[in-house]
Amino acid sequence: MTDRKPIPRDPANDYTPEAAAQRAEFLRERTGVGLHHLRQGSLDPALLPGNIENFIGVAQVPIGLAGPLRINGEHAQGDFYVPLATTEGTLVASYNRGMRVVTECGGVTTTVVKRSMQRAPVFEFPTARGARDFGEWLTAHFDEVRRVAEATTRVGRLVEIEQYPLGNLLYTRFNYTTGDAAGQNMTGKATHAACEWLRETHPDHPRFLLSGSIDTDKKHSAMNTIRTRGRRVVAELVVRSEVLERILRVDARTLFRARQISNAGALMAGTAYNGPHAANGLAALFIATGQDVANVAESHAGVTYAQLLDNGDYYWSVTLPSLIVASYGGGTGLPTQRECLELLGCYGTGRVDRLAEIVAAVVLAGDISLGSAVLAGDWVSSHERLGRNRP
Amino acid sequence: MTDRKPIPRDPANDYTPEAAAQRAEFLRERTGVGLHHLRQGSLDPALLPGNIENFIGVAQVPIGLAGPLRINGEHAQGDFYVPLATTEGTLVASYNRGMRVVTECGGVTTTVVKRSMQRAPVFEFPTARGARDFGEWLTAHFDEVRRVAEATTRVGRLVEIEQYPLGNLLYTRFNYTTGDAAGQNMTGKATHAACEWLRETHPDHPRFLLSGSIDTDKKHSAMNTIRTRGRRVVAELVVRSEVLERILRVDARTLFRARQISNAGALMAGTAYNGPHAANGLAALFIATGQDVANVAESHAGVTYAQLLDNGDYYWSVTLPSLIVASYGGGTGLPTQRECLELLGCYGTGRVDRLAEIVAAVVLAGDISLGSAVLAGDWVSSHERLGRNRP
Amino acid sequence: MTDRKPIPRDPANDYTPEAAAQRAEFLRERTGVGLHHLRQGSLDPALLPGNIENFIGVAQVPIGLAGPLRINGEHAQGDFYVPLATTEGTLVASYNRGMRVVTECGGVTTTVVKRSMQRAPVFEFPTARGARDFGEWLTAHFDEVRRVAEATTRVGRLVEIEQYPLGNLLYTRFNYTTGDAAGQNMTGKATHAACEWLRETHPDHPRFLLSGSIDTDKKHSAMNTIRTRGRRVVAELVVRSEVLERILRVDARTLFRARQISNAGALMAGTAYNGPHAANGLAALFIATGQDVANVAESHAGVTYAQLLDNGDYYWSVTLPSLIVASYGGGTGLPTQRECLELLGCYGTGRVDRLAEIVAAVVLAGDISLGSAVLAGDWVSSHERLGRNRP
Amino acid sequence: MTDRKPIPRDPANDYTPEAAAQRAEFLRERTGVGLHHLRQGSLDPALLPGNIENFIGVAQVPIGLAGPLRINGEHAQGDFYVPLATTEGTLVASYNRGMRVVTECGGVTTTVVKRSMQRAPVFEFPTARGARDFGEWLTAHFDEVRRVAEATTRVGRLVEIEQYPLGNLLYTRFNYTTGDAAGQNMTGKATHAACEWLRETHPDHPRFLLSGSIDTDKKHSAMNTIRTRGRRVVAELVVRSEVLERILRVDARTLFRARQISNAGALMAGTAYNGPHAANGLAALFIATGQDVANVAESHAGVTYAQLLDNGDYYWSVTLPSLIVASYGGGTGLPTQRECLELLGCYGTGRVDRLAEIVAAVVLAGDISLGSAVLAGDWVSSHERLGRNRP
Repeated sequence: MTDRKPIPRDPANDYTPEAAAQRAEFLRERTGVGLHHLRQGSLDPALLPGNIENFIGVAQVPIGLAGPLRINGEHAQGDFYVPLATTEGTLVASYNRGMRVVTECGGVTTTVVKRSMQRAPVFEFPTARGARDFGEWLTAHFDEVRRVAEATTRVGRLVEIEQYPLGNLLYTRFNYTTGDAAGQNMTGKATHAACEWLRETHPDHPRFLLSGSIDTDKKHSAMNTIRTRGRRVVAELVVRSEVLERILRVDARTLFRARQISNAGALMAGTAYNGPHAANGLAALFIATGQDVANVAESHAGVTYAQLLDNGDYYWSVTLPSLIVASYGGGTGLPTQRECLELLGCYGTGRVDRLAEIVAAVVLAGDISLGSAVLAGDWVSSHERLGRNRP
Repeated sequence: MTDRKPIPRDPANDYTPEAAAQRAEFLRERTGVGLHHLRQGSLDPALLPGNIENFIGVAQVPIGLAGPLRINGEHAQGDFYVPLATTEGTLVASYNRGMRVVTECGGVTTTVVKRSMQRAPVFEFPTARGARDFGEWLTAHFDEVRRVAEATTRVGRLVEIEQYPLGNLLYTRFNYTTGDAAGQNMTGKATHAACEWLRETHPDHPRFLLSGSIDTDKKHSAMNTIRTRGRRVVAELVVRSEVLERILRVDARTLFRARQISNAGALMAGTAYNGPHAANGLAALFIATGQDVANVAESHAGVTYAQLLDNGDYYWSVTLPSLIVASYGGGTGLPTQRECLELLGCYGTGRVDRLAEIVAAVVLAGDISLGSAVLAGDWVSSHERLGRNRP
Repeated sequence: MTDRKPIPRDPANDYTPEAAAQRAEFLRERTGVGLHHLRQGSLDPALLPGNIENFIGVAQVPIGLAGPLRINGEHAQGDFYVPLATTEGTLVASYNRGMRVVTECGGVTTTVVKRSMQRAPVFEFPTARGARDFGEWLTAHFDEVRRVAEATTRVGRLVEIEQYPLGNLLYTRFNYTTGDAAGQNMTGKATHAACEWLRETHPDHPRFLLSGSIDTDKKHSAMNTIRTRGRRVVAELVVRSEVLERILRVDARTLFRARQISNAGALMAGTAYNGPHAANGLAALFIATGQDVANVAESHAGVTYAQLLDNGDYYWSVTLPSLIVASYGGGTGLPTQRECLELLGCYGTGRVDRLAEIVAAVVLAGDISLGSAVLAGDWVSSHERLGRNRP
Repeated sequence: MTDRKPIPRDPANDYTPEAAAQRAEFLRERTGVGLHHLRQGSLDPALLPGNIENFIGVAQVPIGLAGPLRINGEHAQGDFYVPLATTEGTLVASYNRGMRVVTECGGVTTTVVKRSMQRAPVFEFPTARGARDFGEWLTAHFDEVRRVAEATTRVGRLVEIEQYPLGNLLYTRFNYTTGDAAGQNMTGKATHAACEWLRETHPDHPRFLLSGSIDTDKKHSAMNTIRTRGRRVVAELVVRSEVLERILRVDARTLFRARQISNAGALMAGTAYNGPHAANGLAALFIATGQDVANVAESHAGVTYAQLLDNGDYYWSVTLPSLIVASYGGGTGLPTQRECLELLGCYGTGRVDRLAEIVAAVVLAGDISLGSAVLAGDWVSSHERLGRNRP
């Protein structure tokens, strides 16, 4: 073996202040570093089974408030005040400015246009013909597969099985709706049951891997941009030229001219997103509201589509094809996270579409602000003024 | 205008408990939601100028400890205990298991192979010929441009200006080394100065945009995977077959066989990463150590490259071409964030390469764990056991 | 206007030797260049309406013969001799060598796993909600849309309408089977009829563009790799290690080792194909058999998937997800093109799957040859020996 | 072995009419198909060593004439008549119409902005550190490497070696200028010599593969779009609104509006080209002029960048970042191919930039025509009228 010193755990109950203190002491011995601030906060370890292992304390991430953000959604309607957890100076101020523009223009229209969470097993056969024929069998037996998958979950619904034959393999995507949960685990469990049933039932008894890497869980992909992962959400706004000029000091023609340059650059660079910075708002909201922050990888992808209208106003839309959010499960029930969801009216069941709409609206507001600031020439200087912790 | 209710601010000094309390009261009036846990914690608002605006409290994100992780880096050497801030059950346990494998195999070898942070201005000309000729002029005057850019920064160094002519535009990437800072703002400021100088000095006085969208800041791109953004870091390990089988219950041949399937799936899906889940470890480390969490968008990209060795062991490498980290600036100096950096010996100047190596090592450990668990068939069941907050 | 000198045409009948001669004379006057070889050949201009305008002569592209290529397809079975039209020295020799390997290993197994040609209209609405709702209406009225589309064509069948909402737009892909034709025009006409019907019938009377650029006609795309365009075809072979070593002077382990390096390079470079050179065989076959050669752009994409078997043999598969071929229509009926199709038993109706299988088998044979030659170190030297027209 | 019947060859001299006739007879015996038209034409087999093996005859591809095309290039200036070899009805007519628009607007401005042909060897080391250090050594010894590489070629010049470390590998791109040749073989030979020298000279004696798959030869890639392969060429034109409306029956605002939709679709679909159909013109020109037609795979990639000007005119540019053409070597010297090059004044040494400019101008003309036709609603109907060989 090695001389590795494993982290102490309390086999009886590891979710106690004592167990955390024991690990802090262990760390102090091994590294000489004492944990002070980490051990502040109001988080009861007893709440944490299912959220963390080897708990030692909490990261305190400052939250700033932006808003009001007016949203004309199907699930989110009204003026929202948005908690953003970040350590990046000017971020809250910039989103706040964008929200002012949005609100003065009458509010963002938001629409959830598709829901689809998936697990993507792959099945192996002697030849491509076996893979193709299994695919046909799978289509014919969809109802049975669905029953097996759905028997494992209270809320998940198997909607479709996409098929992508390649070599002697059949890659699939089992697409589900997952209620208020993000659903990665729910769909994993349901798909695993379906795969086991398929292996037993189909005459070929095909080997499978639960993930053939085309989900693509926790990473951006062309697949997800095209086919949707989580929710596909559109936020759109006609930005009035008067507001643009008054608040953002840029005119719509200049903005549209710059859009062409951004699009060409985005196409050349092969980027996941052709707008300014969806990831900033997403990360800040995800941390605040207890989302799985790793999903910024998938969720930040999208397409900005704009048109200059005949009256000089500016139609600005953002489509997020793989936005993954939850109002239930994961970190959503932890104390500060829950408070932030409650601020948005998004805690608990039946609220996830509302949250998805708010997230998309926030992204659009932030893009309007930064996208305009760059043109108005104050991009560097605002960082200078507000972001003074920067080297 | 509208009936929008702006968020209260204290024009004298907004970074006080009173200002935060005033906003909390405003929120209670507008939303009916009281902030209790958000206002716990030990974060003094007076520390926050430059990190947040409209401060209302802190997100408390639980931190679990994983390790020891043995690293044989050039900057990180020894056994590390890694704080991971997450709300996703099993994540810490899974990384911990991978770290055990890594450590028993003698430790991860980590290497920073390139450093390059950029700002990517675009210059406009009447025709492509003007763009091309300006590019030649730019090459000839690189030393002057560098002097102008570097005059704005104490640590930033302009290393190279890449040129990408397209239409009548010259897209560029100004590549810098940025010391211990991530450097997005430093490079923005330096490049802005260079652009202003170029506009004044060059006979064509070309118009420019500070960002032509090929940086690509806060988003994944083929450009960044190819050309590097932040640090390009490699973590590699020869996983001994005996350890694989003993701890991870999988043999190297099965692992390699599955690698082929993952690679084919990744190529078909057009994914940013062909390994299991870099984003998980990145997000957890970024939150804990005060990194800009939005950079998960860029940093999660990478290439897993493996070989089955003649003796049956398994060479496993992960290359992260656009890893953005800082040991100074941004959120690194906030209380809990600083403690986490100190645990890793990464707080302050001259430590950022060490941090980059640790991050890459953590990613490799996590991939080894999850990548093997999927094959060993316990992926779903471990979530069942540990992740019980999941619906 | 300008002083442009338009090309002479014979308004009565432009498809005559005289009209061609008149243009040749016009060219001689304008450029001083006489056409001698261009005007040889046996192509009767009277055959050419529908294939060319302003006919002046023929390009004579040399054809070399490769084979026999043993194929165990569902539509192509037996030993084939393959005409390849190219001017690149060593190409025929290299494919020939690969075919020898294939044949000695018992032949390629080929499978058409999907058929899908499309036209991709986009519909515009006031907001995303309109786009989404129209999509639901479209799904509900699929049978009517199909009837309208299919009324324009004898063989085309509308199989599916994919929907991709983005902003206030609904991008769609109307997927058809198209019999023995490639079907770009057939599907264009059918979809145009469907769109006109939709504009008239749906209460919103939506504006549309017949192509929203996601077909993606005559260009490679992630979309086509994922979703198929034309035919998705797999060619696969277990290459016996003895044959590899005897004919190609490479062992299977070395080949597999190099495959890992190619996969990693392909992922980093973001390439449309991770094998050696599908495009070479495709272009040569397409020219010879009267295919639309521009479709090399789409057809060359694909995924090579390989496994080293326990007995030391090598499973090698190529999946071409967007192979576009026709055995009828376009240039297939012209004299030399028809002869080449007849050599393959692929002229006329009911033969296009056979042709698709042959094309995929040729691609695999060529990849085996070049992919091994690079490793055997004779890549440069064989070009030296055979390719002496090279500078 | 097998019962394979190899193709007969004449070991004394295979490039004779008799050898071709012998193969034709062999084919007749094996397939029952007689070659009549294939054996017409004026191509003397004695010319063909270095271009083809196992010669059996010629493909006769009809050539249509389009033009005049006015070009204001640096190398191509004046009105050109362009031979297009295709079997796709309406293609010549459509390009011809686009050329009329171009010419009436004063001509296309064309600019070659970069020249770079490459071979991309990969070097293997025990760890990433070895790869990185070798890279530094390589940079320090560039002059020696260049001397070794250039010793193998009369015209090739090694300009730069790009480095892409990944795992324990160093992927490189050796970038050359290659005179009038496309240069794939020239650069292969030169790079092979350099690699052998490196293996002998460097203390680690690193193993290498001549291609690490990032060239990416004969396939599209993000790498080539970003970094250039062959020539990077821009064609640009201010299309006058009056001409647009008179000839193409579309107004500039509609065109610009549709461009936004195409860009968004292209971004979503992950396409190699966001214009209508570069591949059509490329394939037709490549066949006519003896280019390596497989290079349509790389050459069809590009970015369309447009702006609506204040006066209502329309700036339209196409950038082809990986256009591979030759005026010397390969098929350029064969009889009909040479005649077509002579028509364009592009045969022989010192003409390849001229050819590159003409190709880019043709692509732009074709895109203007088809891009407008789609909008004017006559896309389907023109195919109906002219393309009657279509099913």
